[in-house]
Amino acid sequence: MADYKEIRERVFKEDGTGYPAVSFVDMELLPAFMEAREYRVDPLRVTNEAQVAMLVKQKIISPDHAKVILAAIEDLDYGKYRTMDYDGKHEDLFFMIEDELISKTGGLAGSIHIARSRNDLSVALDHLMLRKLVLNAIRELMGLMDTVRAFAEEHKDTLFPAHTHTQQAQPSVLGHYFLGYTDVLNRDLQRFSEAYRIVNTSPLGAAAITTSGFPFDRKYISDLLGFDSIIENSFDSIGCCDADTQTAAAVMLSSINASRVITDMVLWATEEMNILRVADGYISTSSIMPQKRNPIAFEHLRASFSMIKGLCAAVMDGYLKSPYGDISDKDDIVPILVKAINQFCRSIHLFNNVLATCDVNKKLLRERAMDSFSVVTEMADTIVRIADLPFRTAHHVVSALVKKVIASGGGLSSIDEKLFRSVYEQVAGEPFTGDYGMIRKSLDPDHFVSIREVPGGVGPKAMESMLASARSKVENWHTWYNESIRRIEQADASRMKAVGSILNG
Amino acid sequence: MADYKEIRERVFKEDGTGYPAVSFVDMELLPAFMEAREYRVDPLRVTNEAQVAMLVKQKIISPDHAKVILAAIEDLDYGKYRTMDYDGKHEDLFFMIEDELISKTGGLAGSIHIARSRNDLSVALDHLMLRKLVLNAIRELMGLMDTVRAFAEEHKDTLFPAHTHTQQAQPSVLGHYFLGYTDVLNRDLQRFSEAYRIVNTSPLGAAAITTSGFPFDRKYISDLLGFDSIIENSFDSIGCCDADTQTAAAVMLSSINASRVITDMVLWATEEMNILRVADGYISTSSIMPQKRNPIAFEHLRASFSMIKGLCAAVMDGYLKSPYGDISDKDDIVPILVKAINQFCRSIHLFNNVLATCDVNKKLLRERAMDSFSVVTEMADTIVRIADLPFRTAHHVVSALVKKVIASGGGLSSIDEKLFRSVYEQVAGEPFTGDYGMIRKSLDPDHFVSIREVPGGVGPKAMESMLASARSKVENWHTWYNESIRRIEQADASRMKAVGSILNG
Amino acid sequence: MADYKEIRERVFKEDGTGYPAVSFVDMELLPAFMEAREYRVDPLRVTNEAQVAMLVKQKIISPDHAKVILAAIEDLDYGKYRTMDYDGKHEDLFFMIEDELISKTGGLAGSIHIARSRNDLSVALDHLMLRKLVLNAIRELMGLMDTVRAFAEEHKDTLFPAHTHTQQAQPSVLGHYFLGYTDVLNRDLQRFSEAYRIVNTSPLGAAAITTSGFPFDRKYISDLLGFDSIIENSFDSIGCCDADTQTAAAVMLSSINASRVITDMVLWATEEMNILRVADGYISTSSIMPQKRNPIAFEHLRASFSMIKGLCAAVMDGYLKSPYGDISDKDDIVPILVKAINQFCRSIHLFNNVLATCDVNKKLLRERAMDSFSVVTEMADTIVRIADLPFRTAHHVVSALVKKVIASGGGLSSIDEKLFRSVYEQVAGEPFTGDYGMIRKSLDPDHFVSIREVPGGVGPKAMESMLASARSKVENWHTWYNESIRRIEQADASRMKAVGSILNG
Amino acid sequence: MADYKEIRERVFKEDGTGYPAVSFVDMELLPAFMEAREYRVDPLRVTNEAQVAMLVKQKIISPDHAKVILAAIEDLDYGKYRTMDYDGKHEDLFFMIEDELISKTGGLAGSIHIARSRNDLSVALDHLMLRKLVLNAIRELMGLMDTVRAFAEEHKDTLFPAHTHTQQAQPSVLGHYFLGYTDVLNRDLQRFSEAYRIVNTSPLGAAAITTSGFPFDRKYISDLLGFDSIIENSFDSIGCCDADTQTAAAVMLSSINASRVITDMVLWATEEMNILRVADGYISTSSIMPQKRNPIAFEHLRASFSMIKGLCAAVMDGYLKSPYGDISDKDDIVPILVKAINQFCRSIHLFNNVLATCDVNKKLLRERAMDSFSVVTEMADTIVRIADLPFRTAHHVVSALVKKVIASGGGLSSIDEKLFRSVYEQVAGEPFTGDYGMIRKSLDPDHFVSIREVPGGVGPKAMESMLASARSKVENWHTWYNESIRRIEQADASRMKAVGSILNG
Repeated sequence: MADYKEIRERVFKEDGTGYPAVSFVDMELLPAFMEAREYRVDPLRVTNEAQVAMLVKQKIISPDHAKVILAAIEDLDYGKYRTMDYDGKHEDLFFMIEDELISKTGGLAGSIHIARSRNDLSVALDHLMLRKLVLNAIRELMGLMDTVRAFAEEHKDTLFPAHTHTQQAQPSVLGHYFLGYTDVLNRDLQRFSEAYRIVNTSPLGAAAITTSGFPFDRKYISDLLGFDSIIENSFDSIGCCDADTQTAAAVMLSSINASRVITDMVLWATEEMNILRVADGYISTSSIMPQKRNPIAFEHLRASFSMIKGLCAAVMDGYLKSPYGDISDKDDIVPILVKAINQFCRSIHLFNNVLATCDVNKKLLRERAMDSFSVVTEMADTIVRIADLPFRTAHHVVSALVKKVIASGGGLSSIDEKLFRSVYEQVAGEPFTGDYGMIRKSLDPDHFVSIREVPGGVGPKAMESMLASARSKVENWHTWYNESIRRIEQADASRMKAVGSILNG
Repeated sequence: MADYKEIRERVFKEDGTGYPAVSFVDMELLPAFMEAREYRVDPLRVTNEAQVAMLVKQKIISPDHAKVILAAIEDLDYGKYRTMDYDGKHEDLFFMIEDELISKTGGLAGSIHIARSRNDLSVALDHLMLRKLVLNAIRELMGLMDTVRAFAEEHKDTLFPAHTHTQQAQPSVLGHYFLGYTDVLNRDLQRFSEAYRIVNTSPLGAAAITTSGFPFDRKYISDLLGFDSIIENSFDSIGCCDADTQTAAAVMLSSINASRVITDMVLWATEEMNILRVADGYISTSSIMPQKRNPIAFEHLRASFSMIKGLCAAVMDGYLKSPYGDISDKDDIVPILVKAINQFCRSIHLFNNVLATCDVNKKLLRERAMDSFSVVTEMADTIVRIADLPFRTAHHVVSALVKKVIASGGGLSSIDEKLFRSVYEQVAGEPFTGDYGMIRKSLDPDHFVSIREVPGGVGPKAMESMLASARSKVENWHTWYNESIRRIEQADASRMKAVGSILNG
Repeated sequence: MADYKEIRERVFKEDGTGYPAVSFVDMELLPAFMEAREYRVDPLRVTNEAQVAMLVKQKIISPDHAKVILAAIEDLDYGKYRTMDYDGKHEDLFFMIEDELISKTGGLAGSIHIARSRNDLSVALDHLMLRKLVLNAIRELMGLMDTVRAFAEEHKDTLFPAHTHTQQAQPSVLGHYFLGYTDVLNRDLQRFSEAYRIVNTSPLGAAAITTSGFPFDRKYISDLLGFDSIIENSFDSIGCCDADTQTAAAVMLSSINASRVITDMVLWATEEMNILRVADGYISTSSIMPQKRNPIAFEHLRASFSMIKGLCAAVMDGYLKSPYGDISDKDDIVPILVKAINQFCRSIHLFNNVLATCDVNKKLLRERAMDSFSVVTEMADTIVRIADLPFRTAHHVVSALVKKVIASGGGLSSIDEKLFRSVYEQVAGEPFTGDYGMIRKSLDPDHFVSIREVPGGVGPKAMESMLASARSKVENWHTWYNESIRRIEQADASRMKAVGSILNG
Repeated sequence: MADYKEIRERVFKEDGTGYPAVSFVDMELLPAFMEAREYRVDPLRVTNEAQVAMLVKQKIISPDHAKVILAAIEDLDYGKYRTMDYDGKHEDLFFMIEDELISKTGGLAGSIHIARSRNDLSVALDHLMLRKLVLNAIRELMGLMDTVRAFAEEHKDTLFPAHTHTQQAQPSVLGHYFLGYTDVLNRDLQRFSEAYRIVNTSPLGAAAITTSGFPFDRKYISDLLGFDSIIENSFDSIGCCDADTQTAAAVMLSSINASRVITDMVLWATEEMNILRVADGYISTSSIMPQKRNPIAFEHLRASFSMIKGLCAAVMDGYLKSPYGDISDKDDIVPILVKAINQFCRSIHLFNNVLATCDVNKKLLRERAMDSFSVVTEMADTIVRIADLPFRTAHHVVSALVKKVIASGGGLSSIDEKLFRSVYEQVAGEPFTGDYGMIRKSLDPDHFVSIREVPGGVGPKAMESMLASARSKVENWHTWYNESIRRIEQADASRMKAVGSILNG
């Protein structure tokens, strides 16, 4: 068996003795480079531009030098960096690009990094990337919210038996369920917008950890990059994890909420429930059983939202018990968050499209609502209203009535005035003196729905009011989204202008 | 081997044939009752009061009946319910109390439940409980934030070498690290206040799922209970999980953040680091080695925040892929959230007290800062400022200098003017023409710190500004907290007044 | 605003300056004591007995002293310790009992702790507790496995349409699904027995961390306590976490498996599926809708297994990134594992009882199987067997046939010889020359099932073979369980004998 | 605002109306294809080979047809499939290859799929892939175990102060810590081998769900593919998740264990601890501070094992509350498991290499051990041995002595005979009559270590015995691994032989 020295020799032979070791490239640098070439090329360019503009404004570097440096920055072939293979020589994409800039400017470009460190730069690059992904997620969620809103509108009077505890509970309208989900999505979006506020912040100027002795204008560079504000404390700038964890939490909670609705949709698409018919694009069939329509898009969405939730939970594991401060761990954690958000966007998009194209078996739902005993709570309420019985006694009357009907093998339609009066007297100890017409009416599911006009209820006015509110919430999110995009574009324009005036200065 | 019929018989014998089965009591009803008697007695009382007041105002029940019912409500021995054992007869605490009320009022109290169901009631009880726990957590976090703020103030000029990647990186002041943590805590509190906004909402009036046909005033009852708003859609009122998941996320993220600082504290308390001396109340000693001071409070806090994080993650698991709607699952999930928040409060409190009482080895920290090469980044910056060298070249000068000194076995103090000039000329290719006095100054850690006056930096003015800001943030949270408490107390007063006027009416 | 010194004073006033601080008692010592009094009293007694017996045998203490000490150990009022409140003076239960023993023996009992430390002792106490809980879990799982086996036997020929992707896929027998679950449970039990092997090991003799200089007989004391083996390396003895994590993994995986079957059961208990009728003891009803049968036991089990899974995941979080070695974290982690196992036992037990007492709607299942097109795969197989068509072509014949029937609004029964022959010729390009009787037979669900006699199939012989195997697996686990109990009892007897011979020596 | 119909039209336009919809391709089919081309090409080939060989043996297809089919199978350009882009036409790789085979054989190849379904096939492909990955993980863990073993051997007498609760506790040897870790790794490997047993099983013959009516030889095809056994119950074959979850659990627990040791290594690599010097290939330096050596490989490993743990936890989330049976979810879950195992292999490999090449500061460790009071437990033990004092009294003597020395500002070396005798008499109430030479010896850390010869202790013989045992465990795993590889190669040879005899038949 090999002793320690032999093993050590073998490893040095395999890995080399200089930096970076082969196994370190395999585990870390290569995957990190692949992420960087996909997500960091543009952010690196714009932070370089903003940094030079700020250094000039603050007279830290001269306009002449700045002009040379910016020309090189603008001249780089960024497309090349987006597709190139890892060269195994540079630690990362940053050094690769810095080297090219330095060599193109006779060393001048080395000054871009004045008062900057890879510590604050790396966080800035992450934030620029994340804010784009968060905006993507918000756009997809807004889309889904609007589809759900429209679906609810389409089914604002589609009668169906709403379930509690998996059992038919009360007549309702299908749109009411989906309006509920628009409110869930509204909270999801609220959480994403709060995460965005944390993500869209600038660490630049923190440098390695303590800022620097240069008159760095943190507000100015933050503005040029479209950040909403700076992360003030420089230790916090490079050490905190809230942008990642709060984004992860927003994705996680929205995925959990989506998974709950998807779970219902899977159920509704069974042959036995037969409520939803998923469109052809999203089902798998059997080559031999043409009648078979596996709603696999829903199954995949169920699994996908579970995995997204799991990936977000992994982000939490990453930071748990890691030191507060600048840590390498961030490089290994953020890609998992990126994967989660991207899969979230695709999954919400698919969910949107499946929902937008499925058919509802209205006829069957109506029949079930008509057939169910679930209206009888309204009969008890009616008794309370028109007779002078306490609530629980009214319940006992109804319960006795239903039991009797079931025992005789009948259904809702077997209840008639005579039976009602006889049971009523027996239970209440006095004859029923009210108007039986109102009792009869209380057994009509359409009536049941129509009178539930309390705010948030299933009655037509309550529904209209919630629909209007849902429309206006969707519009508010569109406004929020457009405004956020506009602010970034404005910052881009300001930065371009500053760059232009240096280049042409 | 027993066949199915024998097993079935055996189970019926063990569990009984009626509701509730023995094993169901063991697994569910008994633990649920123990939770209810601890957390639901007061909430049940106040919701009953508010419900009756609303029913009278809306003329759904008569003032006379209401008077009888309210008298019974006020007359109950709530202390008894807080300590009683589960009687095995009632499904839950609600039915136990309703039964007593009904029997005390000749059945009238049955009408409390008009237009209400255990579905919306149970959510309301949870929200009343959770808002109290969330306020507790906010109070503890505010306390910790203030202690951390004061600790930072105490150490605003305690020189120490700040670490990155576990290595000494730059001279800093200890207070700067802790000011960073006040900003983390500010974000934690922000998340708790957002969770509070979701928690402090009223589902009442949703009834089972569709509201009811009664003219229920949802806004009025919500106000009487101090809720900020209603959950409008009645399906959403009884089906959503955001109050639980968003609270769990707030607790989870704050625990992760705390775990990171605790991880640093454990490190700082080692004999080798020797930065912190934990007070006697929080360490374990050895009966035989009086010099041994195990900082076990920090170890327990490390574990405790991990477990709290895990309990919050379990809340997420609970709702993942459970249907959207009224589900029994909530009963099993919420107690885990309650356990998490309570342990969070106790852990934040302990963290606060350990931090408030520990001693810092200022002398050693200062020596380490003086001894470290970590100042030399400032030397490079100084060269950039006073010579006309590009940034990276200045770095090469410094690097060559440090290497030379280390090779000769020296430390920071071995650097003198002659050596500097010689290395400079060698690397830069030209003699150094600047003022060496400034170079010498650049090696002084106190100087290093003093000139970092960029916002967020470690310089004295930057620190003062952040300290002022931290003080004002702490004050803002106190205002927020007191205002929240005041609103609840105001609602209590309104409800009491409404109750009083019915009782005396 | 208070400065640091004021805060410090306030905290010292609140917490005291000596050990233990009030907030440390609240967060740690008090809850730990409550756990200890429930789970550590007996383990502490038996380890003390075994320790003394070993010390005598190894001549480390004299028989005379041992006699005095053992008399005191036997004489303690353990019932008192099981119910007493925390006295706030001792660090933990161990010191409380040691103090009483020392005072009862004029100091002699101090020698029990020779060559022992709370480090190894605490792990030993955990293992003694955990092995009991793991055995409980195994007993409950064996019970469930037997019930599932009997349920499968009861339904070995209950025809039903088995689902894939939530759609009816093929005729099968209900018992086949449940026999599948017996194999899942067999793997669950395998994992529990592997965890048991890790749990039932002795750390004793490791002392604080390096063993001791005394001639400690680790094997002997391990035997006296019924452990299967010692954890050899003394650092590993007090530092490893595998007993906890592997147990947590066993509980987690079994909970996930149970949650999957429960998810099916919830579906099967819906009114629309109508497969299962849960017994009265496990459902909630509505006081007003006697027809409503909410299968809440299944809902609670769904949530419960999710929470158990979450608690086990928290155990993993606890050890992740905690140092390898003796850490205080264990004290905070193990109670969560204990909670998980206890809830697992109660949940498996409830699951067992619900399953043992539910009714199956055999008639409806048979009708659905008869009605479904799911048999037609067998028609294609039959064509392959009796005609010379390639498999995919046979599929095309069947597919065309089914499409035609569906288009004409018909069902399975609309397929007759004429139609078959015509479609066959059309698709295959040649007339069907086989025996149509076999084709007709292929459409019979009973026939479909009966010919699937491949091992593991649904045919009667394959089913009988799997039933026999399930019975024998259940018996094997009973043997394993009884043998494990017997070994512990034997060890108890040996220890009692050793104790007795010292007391009577 | 768009109404539902407009949204529906827009989506159909975007996604198409046929299968597969664009958004479904994006979310599911495309990523699934990329996984398949990487992991399923070879498994698909070998299962096709084995299937044909079995169908011939069982006379289900004729040797002539089989010959044609097998020739086509052998003739395919598998390299093409490994790199091709998704064509958007086929649902998956399976259909793509089946189509080519069918077209190459005039339809005959359609018969490969007799008595097979994508349900059982897909599980078989996963198992063939997973067993390879599990074997990779086992190989890497064996490698690490051997390096750790050799490292322990190298440091079997490197004196150091072992820590408990982050404080120096007792003199020990460094190798003892690492021998502890070999035992942890041994348990890790045990769990992986148990997972392998579950993974290396064959579902083939289960077909869609109920097996088939063909005389399928499940054992034969299982043998031809090198599986250890079949998953008997056909529902279980396509519905269980244990292979995935048990593998995930093995990876998770091993990652947690590794994360604990890594946490120690990060600590040991700090400048203040200064125990480890990581080799150049695995650190990052500062361009300006050549003295800075950031041990970032350890930081990345800390994060990496956290992420792997998180990915494995996501696998658990995937199956939690998904139905038991054939579900699409598997397709979304397994890639996350694959990612976890691959990252695990790379991380263990890197860990191995960093450990194999780091330097230990033996001199400093020895000085610390010499300087610490941690030996004094042995002084107490010695008093117990040579005087007649009870254990706790001996402790009091030592404690008083240490306190006195510390109070006078002295260290271990200040203890002399006079002082000892005086303190002894004072505390014990009688003069010390033993041999002071033995007391003096008890203060020597080398002596402390040398006498701890209890099994598992740090004494030289105990260490040798554990080293021998570690060597033999490493060898056993090598044997296990080679045997597993050999069995697969043997199966490959049998299959090739069967294929050959058909092709040449």
